[in-house]
Amino acid sequence: MSAPVAARRPDPGRRDRIIGACLDVIAEVGVDGTSHRKVAAAAGVPLGSMTYHFTGMDELLHEAFTRFGSSISDEFAAHMAAVAGRDEAVEAVVAIITRTVFASPRDLVLTHELYTLAARKPEFRALTSAWMARSRAALERHFDPVTARMLDALIEGLTIHRALDTEPCDPAVVAEAVRRVTAV
Amino acid sequence: MSAPVAARRPDPGRRDRIIGACLDVIAEVGVDGTSHRKVAAAAGVPLGSMTYHFTGMDELLHEAFTRFGSSISDEFAAHMAAVAGRDEAVEAVVAIITRTVFASPRDLVLTHELYTLAARKPEFRALTSAWMARSRAALERHFDPVTARMLDALIEGLTIHRALDTEPCDPAVVAEAVRRVTAV
Repeated sequence: MSAPVAARRPDPGRRDRIIGACLDVIAEVGVDGTSHRKVAAAAGVPLGSMTYHFTGMDELLHEAFTRFGSSISDEFAAHMAAVAGRDEAVEAVVAIITRTVFASPRDLVLTHELYTLAARKPEFRALTSAWMARSRAALERHFDPVTARMLDALIEGLTIHRALDTEPCDPAVVAEAVRRVTAV
Repeated sequence: MSAPVAARRPDPGRRDRIIGACLDVIAEVGVDGTSHRKVAAAAGVPLGSMTYHFTGMDELLHEAFTRFGSSISDEFAAHMAAVAGRDEAVEAVVAIITRTVFASPRDLVLTHELYTLAARKPEFRALTSAWMARSRAALERHFDPVTARMLDALIEGLTIHRALDTEPCDPAVVAEAVRRVTAV
């Protein structure tokens, strides 16, 4: 009896593993190079699992980038929840820009893969919008909504410019920019 | 005699046309989907022209994104050169964020294709660095270098967030953010 039961109730962790493997494949070869075949191989599952668990590549990409965005914004929210008061929040934001987020080349690549996908296909902007909404909500623990919105954009721009510039950026400039945007 | 001469001195506009066609192909199928074959077809040149004019795909991508970055930053510099004084410069920056740059989906896609490429391959950060340097130099007509650097990052973040958000962003928020960063 066990084989048919197993066939009807496949490994419950399999869908999760496929999503994680999809992020690995995107980080390695990019969204355009990602295929069901490569993801199945990376997840160690039969190719047939892909169509069992996902309606197609767009659903898989959606799930993978949802997980990625959530992991980054959960980390960001945890930093914002761990500080008390506006001054500590300003310090934490500066630390996030200069040290924490995008410390890994993988996160930098995955973020830009998502942005390029959302630039090409407006239906993926639900993901980038949701990510921004979570970041702003985390900032709103310490700042008014308008300041949170502009600070979120400043964090984005400073982080990207630091990552894609060949010259090091003075952390004092980051601190001064955050101070100006949050000084009401 | 004309055929051998023509063979030694090929169409002088051909290299330019290939670079332009490369941007069209990237906009259409992305960096990863771009091949010598597709670019040659888009430019209407024989495949052999590609290796005659470029040492390889990286040189072609380098030339194409150099042209793209220059065209965007030339436009930005022209806007900054056309205004007199700080208040007009602030207004122009707000207008650029809310209207001008990335008005076209093509520019949005090409920008993110470049950022993804630079995220993956550090050697392409010379291009993103040069682009930032030109933008900052344009801003320095009206603002001190530190303000120019943070304003450049703010423009980046606000532009990306406006493009990739499903909710419209109030132009008044953009104006207030620019005002705060430039208020020294």
